[in-house]
Parts: sequence; C-alpha cells; structure tokens
Amino acid sequence: MFPKNTWYVACTPTEIDDKPLGRQICGEKIVFYRGADEKVAALEDFCPHRGAQLSLGQVCEGKLVCGYHGLVMGCDGKTVSMPGQRVQGFPAIRSYPVVERHGFIWVWPGDPALADADRIHRLEWADNPDWAYAGGLYHIACDYRLMIDNLMDLTHETYVHTTSIGQKEIDQTPVTTRTEGDTVVTSRFMENVMPPPFWRANLRGNNLADDVPVDRWQVCRFSPPSHIMIEVGVAHAGKGGYGADPKHKVHAVVVDFLTPETETSMWYFWGMARNLNPRDRALTAQIRDGQAKVFAEDTAVLEAQQRNLSQYPQRKLLMLNVDAGGVQSRRILGRLVAQEQPPRVS
Amino acid sequence: MFPKNTWYVACTPTEIDDKPLGRQICGEKIVFYRGADEKVAALEDFCPHRGAQLSLGQVCEGKLVCGYHGLVMGCDGKTVSMPGQRVQGFPAIRSYPVVERHGFIWVWPGDPALADADRIHRLEWADNPDWAYAGGLYHIACDYRLMIDNLMDLTHETYVHTTSIGQKEIDQTPVTTRTEGDTVVTSRFMENVMPPPFWRANLRGNNLADDVPVDRWQVCRFSPPSHIMIEVGVAHAGKGGYGADPKHKVHAVVVDFLTPETETSMWYFWGMARNLNPRDRALTAQIRDGQAKVFAEDTAVLEAQQRNLSQYPQRKLLMLNVDAGGVQSRRILGRLVAQEQPPRVS
Amino acid sequence: MFPKNTWYVACTPTEIDDKPLGRQICGEKIVFYRGADEKVAALEDFCPHRGAQLSLGQVCEGKLVCGYHGLVMGCDGKTVSMPGQRVQGFPAIRSYPVVERHGFIWVWPGDPALADADRIHRLEWADNPDWAYAGGLYHIACDYRLMIDNLMDLTHETYVHTTSIGQKEIDQTPVTTRTEGDTVVTSRFMENVMPPPFWRANLRGNNLADDVPVDRWQVCRFSPPSHIMIEVGVAHAGKGGYGADPKHKVHAVVVDFLTPETETSMWYFWGMARNLNPRDRALTAQIRDGQAKVFAEDTAVLEAQQRNLSQYPQRKLLMLNVDAGGVQSRRILGRLVAQEQPPRVS
Repeated sequence: MFPKNTWYVACTPTEIDDKPLGRQICGEKIVFYRGADEKVAALEDFCPHRGAQLSLGQVCEGKLVCGYHGLVMGCDGKTVSMPGQRVQGFPAIRSYPVVERHGFIWVWPGDPALADADRIHRLEWADNPDWAYAGGLYHIACDYRLMIDNLMDLTHETYVHTTSIGQKEIDQTPVTTRTEGDTVVTSRFMENVMPPPFWRANLRGNNLADDVPVDRWQVCRFSPPSHIMIEVGVAHAGKGGYGADPKHKVHAVVVDFLTPETETSMWYFWGMARNLNPRDRALTAQIRDGQAKVFAEDTAVLEAQQRNLSQYPQRKLLMLNVDAGGVQSRRILGRLVAQEQPPRVS
Repeated sequence: MFPKNTWYVACTPTEIDDKPLGRQICGEKIVFYRGADEKVAALEDFCPHRGAQLSLGQVCEGKLVCGYHGLVMGCDGKTVSMPGQRVQGFPAIRSYPVVERHGFIWVWPGDPALADADRIHRLEWADNPDWAYAGGLYHIACDYRLMIDNLMDLTHETYVHTTSIGQKEIDQTPVTTRTEGDTVVTSRFMENVMPPPFWRANLRGNNLADDVPVDRWQVCRFSPPSHIMIEVGVAHAGKGGYGADPKHKVHAVVVDFLTPETETSMWYFWGMARNLNPRDRALTAQIRDGQAKVFAEDTAVLEAQQRNLSQYPQRKLLMLNVDAGGVQSRRILGRLVAQEQPPRVS
Repeated sequence: MFPKNTWYVACTPTEIDDKPLGRQICGEKIVFYRGADEKVAALEDFCPHRGAQLSLGQVCEGKLVCGYHGLVMGCDGKTVSMPGQRVQGFPAIRSYPVVERHGFIWVWPGDPALADADRIHRLEWADNPDWAYAGGLYHIACDYRLMIDNLMDLTHETYVHTTSIGQKEIDQTPVTTRTEGDTVVTSRFMENVMPPPFWRANLRGNNLADDVPVDRWQVCRFSPPSHIMIEVGVAHAGKGGYGADPKHKVHAVVVDFLTPETETSMWYFWGMARNLNPRDRALTAQIRDGQAKVFAEDTAVLEAQQRNLSQYPQRKLLMLNVDAGGVQSRRILGRLVAQEQPPRVS
C-alpha cells in the first residue's frame, strides 16, 4: 500500500558513481546510473533482448550497455544499438522520472506524465554551507508504514533507545498532533529534564555544560509519501527552550526518507542535519556513528512486529493519542492511493 | 496434526531466568516469563497496542513491559497500564495455562477452561535426590510424529547410531508392543550380547566389567501428547536382566518431550535420568554430552524424511510390526485430535 | 519444461565412489550408487518403509541399505530384505535406467521401457588416449534453457568474459545457424584477429607465438536434450583457420551437459577436451581452473535473468538472428516434450 505518483528517495549519489545500481522500489525493479553528462537515469532493470538484469552491465559513453550481449540502451528506454542488429523494432522499456537534488537521487515510480520536479521535497539545509549532513541506509523487512508509526511516535525512545536518547520524561510528556494539508506535525516539549547520553555528548561537543537541566523538544513532520523530518534539541533550562538563543542550545534535524521495496520491506535512508560546527568532520562522523547504532535498534523491533502482523493479519491494532501522528499520516497515504485508482489520462 | 488441550513442555526454567522467551508452540506465538514471585506466565507474544513482539520486552516488578512503547501487561493478558493512557478498554490478549513442575515449564495451548495441572506428566525421578537428570533442546524441521515413530522403534539405533548405542542384536530381537489406555509400550529384551560403546562406558563408570556379555533392555513408553520415556539398561548376563540386583546393572531413563512448533517443525527436549551416582556431576555432564551427539544424528535423518514426505504427500508408508509403537501412538493422537473438533462449551 | 524420455548426465563416477549420491533430476529425487560388481544403479531416493532418504544409507555387498532401519534395497527397486520382516509384499520403488559411459553416469528419468543405451551421446574423445578431458559441476538457479541460449550464442563472451575469451570481433562477426535433424549448429569464423588472453596462454602452452594475428572459430553443436559441444580454436592467421595443419593451431572441444533439477534450477557439467599434449597433467589442471573461473561468470548473469523472468512471466523476449541457435534448440525440445504428452504404451 503505497502511492506511486510521488517522489521517493532512490539512492544516494555515491551509490551510482562507479557502476549502475539495481534496486527494487514500490515493487518495480529499477536500474539507476549516470548517463550523458553524469545525468542520472532510471530504467526498468530488464533488457528487452532476453530479460537480463541491466544493472549488471556498464555505462559506456553515457549509455547503459547490457552486460550479457552488449545491447546499448538509451536513457529514454529505447535501444540505441546492438552489435549486428537493427534495433528500430525493439520494444522500449520503461524509463522513470529521476532527479538528483539536495544530495539524493529521487525517483517517480508512477505515471511519468504526472511527474513534476517542483514537487520534490525541499531540504533547506542541503545546499547551505552553514549546515552539515551525514547519514546511512538500512534495509528493513517491514511495511514502511510501521516505520512511519515509529517515527511519528517517539515515546518508543524510552524503551528501544534506553542508553542513548531515551528518558522517562518522554513518556510522561504528552504530545500534540495536528494535520496541515498533507503534512502531519507531532510535537513534544519537555521542560527542566536531565539530558540523556546522546544529548550530553552533543552539549559537550558544543562547549555547553552537560550536567544541568535542559528543556528538550521533538517536532516530527511527516509529508507524503514518507518523508519525516524531526527537529530535535535541548537548551539549558529556562533559556527559552526551542526558541532559545543559539548559544544556549544544541539542535539538529533528524532526516528520514522511507522508500517501500515491496509491501513488507523498505529502504530506510536516515541521517542528521545540523548547523552547529558544520565543518567539524570528526563531529559529523561521530554523530553518524552514534545515530547508526541507535537506528539499528529499531530494526529488530520492526521486523518482529511485521512477522507478528503477517501471522495475524486480521487483528485490529489500537490507535491511541500517541499514535495520532502515524494514524493521520496513514490517512493521507490512504487518500493518495485512492486518488491513483481511477483510470488516469495518460 | 496435534492436540491442543494438553500439556506440552514449553521450555526449561533457565530459559526464562534472565529475560522473556518467545517460542512458537502448536502454531501459537507465545511469550514465557517469570512474573510476580517468580511465577511463570505465558501470553500471546503480541502487544495489543501495535502488535509488537512482547518477548523483546522486559519484566519489571513482575509485569511484562513491552519493549516498544512501554505498555505494561499483566499475567492474565490484561493491560495494567501504559504511559499517558487509560487502558480499561484495551482488548485482552490470550493467556495460556502454564505450570512449572518437575524441572520444566509446561504450557496448555488449547482451551484454558479444560486445563488441569493434575494431568501434567508425573516424573517420579524429578524431585528425588537419588536421581540425576541432564538434557538439552534441539529444533528439528519435521512433524513431531516422525520423532514419535523414531523413538518408538529403536531398531534405527543399529543404523543411525552405529558408533554409540547401535548393535546388530537390536535388529535381531523382536519387540512386543501393547496399548494400555492412552499409553503405548514397546519392549525389547536382548540376552547375552556384548555391550556397545555407550554401555561399556557406563559399565566402567559404575565399576562393572565392560568386556563381558550383558542382558540389555529397552522399554519405550509413549503417553499423550508426545512424551516418551525409555527405560534402558544392561545387566551382566544371567543376573536377572531388567530385574537384576542393582549391583549387577546400569540403567537409566531416556526422557523425550516433543513439542510441535508448526505442522512440520518441532522442539525436541531430550535428556537422561539415572539413579546411579546421582551426585557425580562429571558423569552427568559426560552422559549429556554423549547423548547430545547421539541424538544429533537423528536430526539429519528426520529432516530428510520430512522433505521426502512433503515432496510426495500422496505416498502411503508401510506399517510393519516394528512400527507398531508409532502406529498405536498416532492412533491415540488421532482420537484426541478428533475429540477436540466438536464445538466445546467454554 | 524438459523431455524425460532421454539420457541426461547425472553425475561423474567419482561422485559415487565412496557413498551413495542423492540428486534431484527433472523433478525426481534419485539416489545413485554402485551396486554389485561396481555397476551403477539409480533408484527413487525414498525408502518404501517410512520415506527415509536412501542416499543417506550405505552400500553393503552391492545392495543399498537404508540408513534408518536397515531395509536392504535391490538395484531393481525391490526390497531384498529387512531385519525381522517378510518383504515380499513391499511396494517396489522406481528404478531408473542408468549407464556409466564416456566418463559420466547417464540417467533416463522417463519411461524405462523406452530407454535405449545406444542413444547415449557419443563422446569420441572420451575413450581415446590422444585426448585429455577435465571439467567441473556447477549448480545454477535458472531454467536450463537459459543456459542453452547462453551457449548457442557466444556473443556474450565479449561482455561476460571480458578478461579471458571475450573480444570485440566476436560481436562483429555474424554467425550462421542451421538445424540438421535434432542437431543445431551455430558457427562463427573470425579472421585475422588478435587472440584474447585465454588463447594467448594456450598458444604459448603449445609453443606457438601468441603475439600474432590468428583465425579463430567457434562451432556450437546442440543435441537433445541439452548437450552442447563447442569446437573452439585459433590458428596463426592465413594458415587455413579451422582446417589448418595441427602445427599451426590450438583447439579444443568445450563440453557442456545441462541437467534440469527443477523448472528453474539446473546442474551444469562443464569441461574441455583436447588432443594437444593430452598427457600434460599440469596443463589439464591449468585449463580446468581457467575454465572454472570463466564459467562462474555466467552464473550471476543467468540467475539474475531467471529472477527477472520469474518476476515478469508475461514478457515476450526478442528472438534475433544471434538467438537462432537457442531458438532452434528450444523448438526441438518443444517437439520432444509434446511427443511425450500422448498416452504411452508402457
């Protein structure tokens, strides 16, 4: 259950720097590569000659050459040439709208006629030298919507991430959730709490005392199809919290792009953007490594949850106030998927 | 094909000492843990909130706390509390009758109203200081009934366990099988045979000559649903065999509890109980290690047999006199399963 | 989709020298072993007693003894004896026509009444001391017909085997394909080309200059069910090519026996026969090791192709002139399979 007329993160630029990448997205097997002038291209990963996997081939002079019999494929899905063959009659394969922007490769797995690059999610920090970003990619064997639930309800941090970002006060502080058009925002503001290990380290990294109470915030923003940006931070208590002067706080944006592979598996692009000491590469690496460990803790929980739901598909789950973020996000997804059902004008 | 209104061995006490244990039994995913006063509890391994696997959680003050969002579950399957929530309306999950007794945790996967702890298999040796017991657990990808066949027809020892307990005379000595109510007994008595390696070691371990002929016996007792106790032993030949004075013999009880996981996989709790030198821990360990090797030999045979039967489900198998133990045991199981079919008064 | 009334290579003699071999061929689970007088036998790998896998047993005095309960099976599929049993009424299991010839074990998985050893593929070089042969076995998760396509269209060498036998001129030289009865022959003759690494090594190994142009040839011969013999070689350019005097050329026969395991997996018996320096065992080993590396390169390509075809079963593939060898071979197979469909007189 996923909309297809939308932009998903397909991969990072480095994944296609050396050679084509085969990746299944929304049930479609797609090959991504850099064509002419290093421009990214996305095609069905299926050679029209004999069905070979094009991603096992190579890029030569901007064209994808099948690694089996040398068919030369154009970025539009039309065969350019093949040794000793006339190729005019060859059937075209699908080409997918694809755009490199903000440090990611974005793909539109649905109707190409509807693709509009202006609708790609804007990442203000991406091209801003005052910000630093680092992240990673996990493959998780669960419906991507379970990860939406996870990220739109951070009470799980208290239980899943006990040694890093979890703390009892998360649980004890209610959230507010609101839907604005196609965006869902869930916020939690904790006042006068002791910072947990992850934030103590970040306070120290920014030359702020780490043994004093702080105000802590989490503002989760879902936007379709499955992008979740979470503003997180702490400020020394009583300095204004979320709105405190930069010299009293440390903060960042947790970046989550969820891309369905199949109905029960997904690609998880996670990362963190910050505008504190953005040129400190050691700090960037340290944050990424810490985040990698924290986010790996979710994998076992989510995959076990998926196995449970697959074994008991009839069970109804609860939808509590803490679940509002996930519930409202799923509602938007349901509407988008429904909109795709009527016959489209192509 | 397994009865559910019966007691199965679910696990050993040490498996739940540190943390909850998730185990599938008779197709049911169950979490076992120690609740208040260390009393064992068994629940559906499915959090009523969002379907998380409860066995990934922790026990706090005798209650199971879900490792995802902190739902606190009572031993009766009713939610006790959840941070920031009213839980009165939460649906209960199934709780399973469960009893710790005789060194095992026993579970009743069927109708709780019918569970009667008095029907748990009695292990006379379990709480008797004159006896020692040690064993292990194997997971085997086969219908548990194939293991019943295996254990109720020990002629396979000659072929599968050639270097330990097998000997040609097993094959050459006919068995007698009788059904007494719900119990099936298959007996074999060999006279004046040389002891095979396993028994030579045991004779030596009890200061008896190991290079002289012995009388050897095997008395296999099946009782539902899938408990098989096998009296085994050797006595110096001519001293009375099975009934010989203890000073002339070594003997033990092979303990086999078979617990279905699915229709084609099982948990095999195996072990040996003896009343010879029960306080000799080195001997206990030596016997367990030897038995572990012998019983591992069955695994490959049974899993290959299961693959064959799954590939050729129509084939009829033979039911020979040596198979009588398995055949009569399966007949009892068939009757018990049939009895469970009519609508029950709950 | 494979004919069954035909001879397939089942295994090599060394695979059954020490113990029985269980192998699935054309969907049939078969046990191969050496019976009386070392004569090879092939039976269903299914003990008529309880369905145990006979290939886990042992051969004693020329008879296969089941490793579970000691049933003694004759080479005709009839039970010879079983400890303590009368076996006259035991159902027979299938025995398969099987012949050891030309260095291979050949099995006929179809109707035994039609099996005729004279129809086993003749390997002229096999029993000729002027020739040497070495090869290996790969298991590949693809329909064996994809391998037929592969071997009947060697243009793939240019792309898949770039560092050994591939060269651009393969692509640039058209093939001719003809069907003669049940045989398909695809030929390619390249003139005045530089030899690729594999052939340079072979030229040197035969004391011929490796840095001069050569004429190179590939003559692929398919015969049912799935035997492909490929004459390959190079001669110093202008010396007559394929027909050149032996002192100017190096050549060999690539030997390919494809045996279906299931509809989407196969056993690939590959090798090379040559009559140059046949007693040079180091050269034989060197050629086999080189060929093992080259042929392993096909595995990834074919398995990915199979996954693609399985995911998109409706797609029609192209059938170009270069595909003629595979297309014509598949046509013969289709006819043979169709002939097996009408009711047969047994």
